[in-house]
Amino acid sequence: MPGNSFGKIFTITTFGESHGQAVGVIIDGVPAGLRLSQEDIEFELSFRRPGRLYVSGRRERDIPEILSGVYNGRTTGSPIAIIVKNTDVISSFYEEVKIKPRPGHADLPFIMRYGYENWDYRGGGRSSARETVGRVAAGALAKKLLMYHDTWIAGRLKSLGLVDSPPADFLSILCSKYSPVRASDQDTELKFEELVKQATVEGDSLGGVAEIVVRNPPAGMGEPVFDKIKADLAKALLSIPAVTGFEYGLGFNAAKMKGSEANDAIVKRGEKLGWRDNKSGGILGGITTGEDIVLRCSFKPTSSIRKPQGTVNLMTGEPAEISVIGRHDPAVAIRGVSVAESMVAITLADHSLRSGFIPPVKLESKEAEIVENRWRRYMEECKRTEASR
Amino acid sequence: MPGNSFGKIFTITTFGESHGQAVGVIIDGVPAGLRLSQEDIEFELSFRRPGRLYVSGRRERDIPEILSGVYNGRTTGSPIAIIVKNTDVISSFYEEVKIKPRPGHADLPFIMRYGYENWDYRGGGRSSARETVGRVAAGALAKKLLMYHDTWIAGRLKSLGLVDSPPADFLSILCSKYSPVRASDQDTELKFEELVKQATVEGDSLGGVAEIVVRNPPAGMGEPVFDKIKADLAKALLSIPAVTGFEYGLGFNAAKMKGSEANDAIVKRGEKLGWRDNKSGGILGGITTGEDIVLRCSFKPTSSIRKPQGTVNLMTGEPAEISVIGRHDPAVAIRGVSVAESMVAITLADHSLRSGFIPPVKLESKEAEIVENRWRRYMEECKRTEASR
Amino acid sequence: MPGNSFGKIFTITTFGESHGQAVGVIIDGVPAGLRLSQEDIEFELSFRRPGRLYVSGRRERDIPEILSGVYNGRTTGSPIAIIVKNTDVISSFYEEVKIKPRPGHADLPFIMRYGYENWDYRGGGRSSARETVGRVAAGALAKKLLMYHDTWIAGRLKSLGLVDSPPADFLSILCSKYSPVRASDQDTELKFEELVKQATVEGDSLGGVAEIVVRNPPAGMGEPVFDKIKADLAKALLSIPAVTGFEYGLGFNAAKMKGSEANDAIVKRGEKLGWRDNKSGGILGGITTGEDIVLRCSFKPTSSIRKPQGTVNLMTGEPAEISVIGRHDPAVAIRGVSVAESMVAITLADHSLRSGFIPPVKLESKEAEIVENRWRRYMEECKRTEASR
Amino acid sequence: MPGNSFGKIFTITTFGESHGQAVGVIIDGVPAGLRLSQEDIEFELSFRRPGRLYVSGRRERDIPEILSGVYNGRTTGSPIAIIVKNTDVISSFYEEVKIKPRPGHADLPFIMRYGYENWDYRGGGRSSARETVGRVAAGALAKKLLMYHDTWIAGRLKSLGLVDSPPADFLSILCSKYSPVRASDQDTELKFEELVKQATVEGDSLGGVAEIVVRNPPAGMGEPVFDKIKADLAKALLSIPAVTGFEYGLGFNAAKMKGSEANDAIVKRGEKLGWRDNKSGGILGGITTGEDIVLRCSFKPTSSIRKPQGTVNLMTGEPAEISVIGRHDPAVAIRGVSVAESMVAITLADHSLRSGFIPPVKLESKEAEIVENRWRRYMEECKRTEASR
Repeated sequence: MPGNSFGKIFTITTFGESHGQAVGVIIDGVPAGLRLSQEDIEFELSFRRPGRLYVSGRRERDIPEILSGVYNGRTTGSPIAIIVKNTDVISSFYEEVKIKPRPGHADLPFIMRYGYENWDYRGGGRSSARETVGRVAAGALAKKLLMYHDTWIAGRLKSLGLVDSPPADFLSILCSKYSPVRASDQDTELKFEELVKQATVEGDSLGGVAEIVVRNPPAGMGEPVFDKIKADLAKALLSIPAVTGFEYGLGFNAAKMKGSEANDAIVKRGEKLGWRDNKSGGILGGITTGEDIVLRCSFKPTSSIRKPQGTVNLMTGEPAEISVIGRHDPAVAIRGVSVAESMVAITLADHSLRSGFIPPVKLESKEAEIVENRWRRYMEECKRTEASR
Repeated sequence: MPGNSFGKIFTITTFGESHGQAVGVIIDGVPAGLRLSQEDIEFELSFRRPGRLYVSGRRERDIPEILSGVYNGRTTGSPIAIIVKNTDVISSFYEEVKIKPRPGHADLPFIMRYGYENWDYRGGGRSSARETVGRVAAGALAKKLLMYHDTWIAGRLKSLGLVDSPPADFLSILCSKYSPVRASDQDTELKFEELVKQATVEGDSLGGVAEIVVRNPPAGMGEPVFDKIKADLAKALLSIPAVTGFEYGLGFNAAKMKGSEANDAIVKRGEKLGWRDNKSGGILGGITTGEDIVLRCSFKPTSSIRKPQGTVNLMTGEPAEISVIGRHDPAVAIRGVSVAESMVAITLADHSLRSGFIPPVKLESKEAEIVENRWRRYMEECKRTEASR
Repeated sequence: MPGNSFGKIFTITTFGESHGQAVGVIIDGVPAGLRLSQEDIEFELSFRRPGRLYVSGRRERDIPEILSGVYNGRTTGSPIAIIVKNTDVISSFYEEVKIKPRPGHADLPFIMRYGYENWDYRGGGRSSARETVGRVAAGALAKKLLMYHDTWIAGRLKSLGLVDSPPADFLSILCSKYSPVRASDQDTELKFEELVKQATVEGDSLGGVAEIVVRNPPAGMGEPVFDKIKADLAKALLSIPAVTGFEYGLGFNAAKMKGSEANDAIVKRGEKLGWRDNKSGGILGGITTGEDIVLRCSFKPTSSIRKPQGTVNLMTGEPAEISVIGRHDPAVAIRGVSVAESMVAITLADHSLRSGFIPPVKLESKEAEIVENRWRRYMEECKRTEASR
Repeated sequence: MPGNSFGKIFTITTFGESHGQAVGVIIDGVPAGLRLSQEDIEFELSFRRPGRLYVSGRRERDIPEILSGVYNGRTTGSPIAIIVKNTDVISSFYEEVKIKPRPGHADLPFIMRYGYENWDYRGGGRSSARETVGRVAAGALAKKLLMYHDTWIAGRLKSLGLVDSPPADFLSILCSKYSPVRASDQDTELKFEELVKQATVEGDSLGGVAEIVVRNPPAGMGEPVFDKIKADLAKALLSIPAVTGFEYGLGFNAAKMKGSEANDAIVKRGEKLGWRDNKSGGILGGITTGEDIVLRCSFKPTSSIRKPQGTVNLMTGEPAEISVIGRHDPAVAIRGVSVAESMVAITLADHSLRSGFIPPVKLESKEAEIVENRWRRYMEECKRTEASR
């Protein structure tokens, strides 16, 4: 299988370039009977949308068109094709990029791999973060499907540059959806905004760390020994543009600890066994424990910055400078939270199907109704907090 | 595909439990014509062997038997089955584990997933690090195959507990193979040894960070957008028992930087384009740049420790304590370096085949000879440094 | 992987229902640098087009839109999305099908699998032969790619009902493209037409056998032991709606022979070894021999016929009759030839990439030009014969 | 994935050469909790065993060793490795084959693909039918697993050379296991034996057709559009050495029929819908209908015959003759029945898991017991008929 597909049962294949006709995704392996509307997809897409405050100035509303796999508002078990047309495209800047590949960008590696004459340099082509539209559309579906066992996924920007967030409860993380900088509290929001404004003034950009929390995952997901849930999540997150690291639970800090500190006592809670402090982030032996899954990934700063950077002129072979003046996010990590959430949702939907926690072929009407109700509640839960901001 | 296979062309499938008949691996997708001997495999296996100083006291020599796929010392293009019999097995301790699952261990998740009555609790069963014998055997083959384009892989224990190593050149990292604690210099080796002794006395264990460096990888490997080389490496490493985090290049530090700091100028070196400081660790846009690949993964401390830990007695449902007295490494990170190297080698061999840098069906005799010579030189290079220690 | 994808390197994923928005295909794993135009796709699509003489009356021109993966007329190495909108759709007839599932059709099995309420019954939904539009679009690309080693694929309707064709040379088979009944000679064409007319009058339908010939395939393709070229071809052809059997070379006749009859002497032709009579149809041990590949598949008669057939009324549970009055081919085998050719092309393109006969990442400009010239010659070769009819 | 694996959930990987150390199989994706013993495997292996009357004189008992994945007589959910050592090996004859490749055999294609110097020519190496030991071992497990929904698989030699069998009921087909020529009735058995004796005297061999019947399969298995159950069965059967064709239901005969003849009326049987005559062989739209699955595959005559055949001397380049004097079956189709049954079982076990008819992770104790009882009954059913012969 080539590289544009992900997942073994719940499988997505994305396609499309930044300045091409459209970007999109095929989602295969979705059981029949799930209610699905354009609004469900658009709800999640709205949180990665460019044109929001502090993110890229590109002004697309990103309207998803469902081309197949849904009939009368229900999935049919056939592959679901969703496309989003590219409308607000300005390719003129990229004539410079064509000659002067950007440092920190995929320009030169794409040339090395595919050949200069075959390179779609406009807007980053296939390496553009615009490709992630398809992931977020599929993520919406995955999140909805996970409502089958009432599993909810939330994410926030945990740190931006040198500013870190305090711990937060699940609902605050969920509601960061409506924060323009994906902060989970208002104090941090102000600090993040200050940083972003400053970086914009300086023509520079910022890195950050996204944190994703999964509430109420089923215990027992994950396939030893290579498709451990931690392994598939790591792949999912590192497949996102600009992500440079992944950790779950104690993560890199565990490397500095002793066993007696890092281990987590097994305890009884009512009739069920669990772990006292969930130090392992909901995963042990590569299998979910039933505790919340907690993970983080680091985003490097946006590579495209106004500050001049050293490169080489491909026509002359001489050293050159490039100052990137397109519309770019000052911190890709902000919109990256939405993409990271989606990849987590897709990975878990796949494993949930693989482990038999969701039936592979069809949902019964009753089940579909429960899923629909939980999904409505999820959307309201997010919006309620918006009102309170 | 279930979870015990890894790779798309160069594909490994491991099998076997800690206290079963044997552990082993099937390696499929190896081109015909590669020279391969039991010694090649044993060379690499010797560096993960239990029974060495500072690691588990289990005294197996781990002799690999090649059951198929090799004729007259050459691979035939058929799958290569390698098994290592389990000989030094003492299961008696595990009668306690059977009743009191170990904190920080896969015992309870395996019970949750597969059912108590189907659980092979002896020695950790399938979740034991013994499973990695197959990975290291396959890693030996992968490393040898990568000699086709003269790509070398080396690893070291970068940090143990709170002690970090200074930077090191490639050969020093390569030669850490012969350090009992996988240190890349003698000063660090002494510090690491001190830590290990202390932990052993305390009945405790230590976490650590492994660093892997790949010299001279071909530029242009990695398949957008999900099979980015960074994504497949992340999965490879997180599939290793006890690994809790992955990063490459600037890794998590990139999240604290500005774009102007994290970007790396493109420069011309002779006729070729490259990157001035290799800040991206040899990977941009998920594609190899031709610079050295540099990555790290964190290992948590060994979960099995002598210090008593809180658990639950599965028979009575009462709280209990367990003090693990089997033969366990004080720091799995030490032997983990060898496994991490192997997983990197396997991932790169797979991608090298996928990108056409190694011919998929057969090597010509001349090519096989060059590979063999480079491999001999690699083994000598390692040994030479052993002498100098 | 769910069932809507095919191939391991050259991979296609089809989507879309008969009366939905569109049908389409994602083609991944195509090397960069191949010249590709809408016309290339449309050329092949025109031969499966409904609305031609003797086939379904549906009057769509089937205009392919390439949404991604092509820039400046060349493939970029990114996935190629092609959609064909559904325009001439009349769903009214299917209100009857919704209540009375058609004998010989996928109606009832779809209900059994996916649930009645999730069933898109309009036009057969996903089980409609309209899905094969995506296959033929991908097949055009595959056929063009195979020009890399000058491999040509041709197909004909070998038999229709009880009428069989005489042997034919490769060019006559190629030129059956322009015969309204895919006959390879004019005498047979007349006989086939007569049969079709008669079946139409009777409100009945006809079965037939398609024969595909591959000229000049590379020797050495096919992966023992499960991905033998014969196994993957069998799967490819049996995945086509209405196909009920597959054979290659001597096929089922071999079962009636003695070894001394079925074996084929090895001979020397110039410097190369070959087989005297190509009895094995170009495949031995599941590997291509370099001789022409020859295979056949049987199509059952179109299930949708005007003649009343026994079924059950799903609302009342009573026995019922259905007379299918939609626009249906009197013999699906006629248009099936085009689909069968496409599936053979897709399978061979995949195996050619797997075996390294086509470079996996990019074609050099020179190579792409040679491919383009051969493709032009191929199209002319077909058309030339049209003129002579 | 390279070619030595088959299946998506229930996945087998075979390895080993005819005259190497061992042949074997890894079976992954088996739920925990299934009772499994060496005897279960050996029972099925005994019916493909060489050394039985009328088949190859090789005298191996083929004792399967289960190396992993089973503890206390139950599967654990981990991969199950089974090996069978090669004991009765005589390689001397193959020194002639090394110089004179056999007509009708994989010798020359293997040389073409993998290179002469990498070719394991002893006993056919990897292309030998001995590889199918692993398939039959895995098939035993698959057949047992299918007892979960009481699905039984039986096969017979339907025709040998020009002699065809009359129709037979399921139990007669099942009991052909104990016929030395896999005949389903004694009259046919005598005719088949006569043919075999005659061919042996002539130094020649015979082709034949195997027929497999699946009783009581669940309705609704098969994944549109490429992993149709008919497509995966076709691949499964064509992956067997010497198989040259596949058909199900009416098969190639359907091509000669009219729709009104080939269609099958839908009828009500009690509360369930079904098809009157099961003309479609239990498959419609690529999905199981719940009726018996009926399929056939053609085997060509054994290529290795005593009668001299034309070939080329690879050393001199001159025409040559070869008379194959090793121990070879006069009709591979006889033992092929057992392999065909196994491949059908493996395919159905995989699809049953994919469609959720068997739980993917574990069987409850109660379920395992039911499976065990049905399996016992299955073995007795076979043996009972042996007694009556």
